[in-house]
Amino acid sequence: MSRFLKNTYAKLEAYTPGEQPKDGEYIKLNTNESPFPPAPEVTEVLEKEDIERLRLYCDPTSAELKGKLAELYGVSSENVFLSNGSDDILNFSMMAWSGKGAVFPDITYGFYPVFAELHGVEYEEIPLKEDFTVDASDYIARDKLIFIANPNAPTGIEMPLSEIERIVASNSDTVVVIDEAYVDFGGTSALPLIEKYENLLVVRTFSKSRCLAGGRLGYAFGCKALIEDLEKIKYSTNPYNINSLTAKLGCATVDADSYYTDRCKEIIKNREYTAKALETLGFTVLKSKSNFIFAKSDKISGEDLYLKLKKRKILVRHFSKERIRDFNRITIGTKAEMDALLENTEEILKEI
Amino acid sequence: MSRFLKNTYAKLEAYTPGEQPKDGEYIKLNTNESPFPPAPEVTEVLEKEDIERLRLYCDPTSAELKGKLAELYGVSSENVFLSNGSDDILNFSMMAWSGKGAVFPDITYGFYPVFAELHGVEYEEIPLKEDFTVDASDYIARDKLIFIANPNAPTGIEMPLSEIERIVASNSDTVVVIDEAYVDFGGTSALPLIEKYENLLVVRTFSKSRCLAGGRLGYAFGCKALIEDLEKIKYSTNPYNINSLTAKLGCATVDADSYYTDRCKEIIKNREYTAKALETLGFTVLKSKSNFIFAKSDKISGEDLYLKLKKRKILVRHFSKERIRDFNRITIGTKAEMDALLENTEEILKEI
Repeated sequence: MSRFLKNTYAKLEAYTPGEQPKDGEYIKLNTNESPFPPAPEVTEVLEKEDIERLRLYCDPTSAELKGKLAELYGVSSENVFLSNGSDDILNFSMMAWSGKGAVFPDITYGFYPVFAELHGVEYEEIPLKEDFTVDASDYIARDKLIFIANPNAPTGIEMPLSEIERIVASNSDTVVVIDEAYVDFGGTSALPLIEKYENLLVVRTFSKSRCLAGGRLGYAFGCKALIEDLEKIKYSTNPYNINSLTAKLGCATVDADSYYTDRCKEIIKNREYTAKALETLGFTVLKSKSNFIFAKSDKISGEDLYLKLKKRKILVRHFSKERIRDFNRITIGTKAEMDALLENTEEILKEI
Repeated sequence: MSRFLKNTYAKLEAYTPGEQPKDGEYIKLNTNESPFPPAPEVTEVLEKEDIERLRLYCDPTSAELKGKLAELYGVSSENVFLSNGSDDILNFSMMAWSGKGAVFPDITYGFYPVFAELHGVEYEEIPLKEDFTVDASDYIARDKLIFIANPNAPTGIEMPLSEIERIVASNSDTVVVIDEAYVDFGGTSALPLIEKYENLLVVRTFSKSRCLAGGRLGYAFGCKALIEDLEKIKYSTNPYNINSLTAKLGCATVDADSYYTDRCKEIIKNREYTAKALETLGFTVLKSKSNFIFAKSDKISGEDLYLKLKKRKILVRHFSKERIRDFNRITIGTKAEMDALLENTEEILKEI
């Protein structure tokens, strides 16, 4: 850190992404990536000409991709915002609408408090209930910028859409951001509500269900005025935020939608299979609607299991935060990967 | 704009990028892109496997590309920062080191005041001299964050390295950002000074001389502590800011360095040719060390020439700012493109 850095940033604790080992030998169940490659129509769409055209700037309006997403999800292009990953959109949201402060659960996506600290926003972290669900009552008429990941991370638990609507309706003078990074794995989207509520932003990503984590593509739906706010911040920071290749891959991804909904079904099947098997091994597994499960065992600490699995070349994610340190977040991979996890976990439990 | 947007942003005027026509029929001399495709080694480097691997997050440390840039430029990896275009780096710089305010020329890259407004930074715009050069004396011992584009845009004029050093040396308690987006077209880089001065950041881009505008890749050199500051902001906004494909293309670009230095020589040759020909047509052409020239004619207004060229399917960039409205900024393309520009300009002048 230099002696020139502003005080506000000097105290800041940045977000820590999950481990990204470079030797590639691990079964990677730690960063909620998809075990499947993009659709064949996507892996084959780039031509030499596309690389040659990289000499030119990309389309800052991303008109084609916006149009395709709008059509797929039954909204208008003016209701769609695109960015270089959904983190970017969450960050812009924190910048744009936090004039009265922000509020979010204590156990949720770890980036929300980082964005708040970064922009000097006062924020409140509301404890989840004992059963790790979000209590909608805590967010009624708060009149602050609200972030709710639904399904929540790292718990995987979903809040019913009726509760989301109750929160949105009761906070009509502030914005409610519903972070639906994991909604495609069995969750119910708040998207239909954007027509009714001008204070609702629904944030999505191509990183999980669309197998494009390395391509960096996030999107959001909201009323025209909210999208205009985000565009204004984009044009004031990085107008060409989505590179041409990612834009083209994104278009091909939207066109191949059924491939992805089928892969999501497979993930859901593997999730239910894994959850059941872990319960048979004595684990407590929270009810997940995402592509990961959050599980703990009375027989072994969360950290110990994480370390022992890592030694066996299986990576899961452990958080040291007090309330959830007994748990591990396990990304759902292929059936074979899940079987490897289960076998190794069983062996580890036998050894102790 | 929504009624929820913070007041500071409501008043903000975003940056306006140059026109990006979608019909592709234009000779595009308006956004300082390269007329050449990336090197053959770059256009052929992506394999189907790279697209398949997009299911995984990219390496947030961009270790390979950092290493390659460090080697090419004779610094250490810890002196290199990478981001999603150099705008991102300039924005982070404004965030990180503007505690005492910022200062930059009145005629320069139009994004500096936008970043300042965005982050509520007090700033001063210092008029260029009558001959459109930056007066180094104006920046001595200012004790504010200083941005100097060198060569400057849209003038193309370079400040001698000795003057840059004088500015850096006299502002030892604040950071000086030298924006070298155009340095590869005959300019002298301040890079050798980063070893000597802990308050110097040198910002570069793959968008111009490396023919990768659509790939979004910017980089910066500075002492370890300055790079740590930028990394902290990156990890607090968008840790995976460079997508995997761009990282691989960037590596191949560094490996093919001589291809690009040859293309730069060609641009320089075409620039000198075009400048001379325009002078023959009666234009005043500022002495450029970049991949564009800034030129005006007594016979036709800047806007009129811009519009008449546009009608003839040639795009140049016109700025409406009072002091430079007589000029147009003309990107240097291929010899054939320059001849088309010159012929059409000659015809336009004959018609008036």
